[in-house]
Amino acid sequence: MYAVILAGGSGTRLWPLSRPDRPKPFLPLLGKRTLLRATFDRLVPGLLGPGDVVVVTDRRYAALVLEELPELDHSQVLGEPVGRNTAAAIAYATAAIERPPDDVMVVLPADHLVRDEDAFRALLRGAAALAEGGQPGTGAPPLVTLGIAPTGPEAGYGYIVAAGPRPGGSGALDVVRFVEKPSVDAAAALLAGTASVAWNAGIFAWRRDAIRSALATHAPDIVGAVEAGVRAAAGDPTSLDAAYATLRATSIDYAVMEPASRAGDVAMLRADVGWSDVGSWAALRDVLVADALAAGEPAGVVGYGARRDRGSESTLVMGGGRLVVTIGLRDTIVVDTPDALLVCAADRSQEVRAIAEELARAQEEDR
Amino acid sequence: MYAVILAGGSGTRLWPLSRPDRPKPFLPLLGKRTLLRATFDRLVPGLLGPGDVVVVTDRRYAALVLEELPELDHSQVLGEPVGRNTAAAIAYATAAIERPPDDVMVVLPADHLVRDEDAFRALLRGAAALAEGGQPGTGAPPLVTLGIAPTGPEAGYGYIVAAGPRPGGSGALDVVRFVEKPSVDAAAALLAGTASVAWNAGIFAWRRDAIRSALATHAPDIVGAVEAGVRAAAGDPTSLDAAYATLRATSIDYAVMEPASRAGDVAMLRADVGWSDVGSWAALRDVLVADALAAGEPAGVVGYGARRDRGSESTLVMGGGRLVVTIGLRDTIVVDTPDALLVCAADRSQEVRAIAEELARAQEEDR
Repeated sequence: MYAVILAGGSGTRLWPLSRPDRPKPFLPLLGKRTLLRATFDRLVPGLLGPGDVVVVTDRRYAALVLEELPELDHSQVLGEPVGRNTAAAIAYATAAIERPPDDVMVVLPADHLVRDEDAFRALLRGAAALAEGGQPGTGAPPLVTLGIAPTGPEAGYGYIVAAGPRPGGSGALDVVRFVEKPSVDAAAALLAGTASVAWNAGIFAWRRDAIRSALATHAPDIVGAVEAGVRAAAGDPTSLDAAYATLRATSIDYAVMEPASRAGDVAMLRADVGWSDVGSWAALRDVLVADALAAGEPAGVVGYGARRDRGSESTLVMGGGRLVVTIGLRDTIVVDTPDALLVCAADRSQEVRAIAEELARAQEEDR
Repeated sequence: MYAVILAGGSGTRLWPLSRPDRPKPFLPLLGKRTLLRATFDRLVPGLLGPGDVVVVTDRRYAALVLEELPELDHSQVLGEPVGRNTAAAIAYATAAIERPPDDVMVVLPADHLVRDEDAFRALLRGAAALAEGGQPGTGAPPLVTLGIAPTGPEAGYGYIVAAGPRPGGSGALDVVRFVEKPSVDAAAALLAGTASVAWNAGIFAWRRDAIRSALATHAPDIVGAVEAGVRAAAGDPTSLDAAYATLRATSIDYAVMEPASRAGDVAMLRADVGWSDVGSWAALRDVLVADALAAGEPAGVVGYGARRDRGSESTLVMGGGRLVVTIGLRDTIVVDTPDALLVCAADRSQEVRAIAEELARAQEEDR
């Protein structure tokens, strides 16, 4: 069993901390610890050794990965020439990592949080056992996905729709459909249905031969180009660049999991492990408030850096080098960086992305 | 007629912009313009020439005054060795400024704002005429004070209680009492009474001989010590320091105006001139919102510095050198300085003083 951590993405919703040269997985959102570091620590040593982890990232972040995870050597960081979404990244890992074909690969995003780490590791063990296959009456080894127990009709997530239990008594459900980010109304309708519905966290377990075969069936262009690029790379270091230049950018959910689920090849394990995608400042606020309450600490203002408060509630302060004083705020986000300051109503923290994009465009025009 | 501007005070309620080395009159609260500069511009040239203005300030701020008001020469800045409140400052001006005894001196704080400047100047002209005395049946030349038309039972202000009109048909009222910062309930009771009640803005007009005589009657210790110090200063530059060292710190309202009003020597002119003492960030926010609305400009976010907003309301941003982004705020104050950041609910901006004092104490203890 080994893990592939996908450390790409930009995270414009975490502006002004997140910037193109330091995207979300590399942000110290947990005090001094980054999300990437927390993802690694969740696996090593509780579940895997440091030699069993590979990180796929944009090539320009490879140095950041090694800085964050000094336990890894260069061969454990796969640098993509350019980001082409998760289908390409997983095809690359499948082609480049030399492991036995029946070894189970666990895939995880580098920028999520999990509060109940023991339960999470137990769940990954169960997912790996399921992915290994060989249980009587279960057919070919399945592609296994974790389904996060939903807390409401969130519009920002993908949804997994499962039918009844799979044979074999593993507790896994048979996935029949993946739904990409529905509207709130559509999400509510999904959750109100009788089927088992979960959030798609992009956490998977599969045998290398199983995902290789699914890619070949459902996304032959992607796996073909990537494998050719990887094979030729020994003789021609630019071959991967050429391969990636032609790749379409698409998610593994859309390219593989959705068609594979229709073919009955996807199993889901429900996960209730205190997961968060930290998809916005409000989401980080929620995580830190829950942590403070669990630790019996005051949760009026959570965050980091030098700060002083009088009577604020449910407020996140991400301090920079300066003292931040808050008075009487409620559900407010304050993010202080050397060149920009964000003060935002928590229930509008999704709009940070629009501001970050506006600023990027304005900067572009200035050039 | 000449003006004495009192530029002392600390203004801890305007932390983190206000600091001991740059108190409230010297803050650029009006874009690039400071309150002191705005006070001077309100008088010169509309009412007085630059030679008719004297500023009394703590000696350590004398250079700041001359920086802000390069029109003045050194003799027009009276530096006190130490702040001893307004009774001492006015006694010092009375003793040190060589003007005819029947010339009218207008006294104004350096840290207030007046929106209707024409009406204000007209009012000062009326106050000066009244202070000159000589109207039939009015007795000795009165001490004249402006009474600000109150907009509600503010607890932070002093109140002036007047009885009927003074003889002479000037429109002035006879002041019977000064009330130092009452509670909200006491202020409401005052306003509900039948007498004419106004806020005390600390703006006065009087002949030099009239205030000299009132000081001699009601605060002989103060005027005696200050006059002796000023007289001896030619031979001994430290004489004023010695005089101030013994002075009690008390306001002109308490030391002179209150007893003089009981003696029937104080006249009030009501002033409805868009006055604000800018006593808190919320007060500045109110002024700038009113200015924006009057100019037909958007008033969702008012203030200065590089800023960008989505849908905030009644919010003040005092930017520093960095971009400040606000999203969905309401009645919020953001003040950004190089070493400290304040984010505060507007209705709690009085508490800034407590924070500033806590920080000063903590700094003291660190020494």
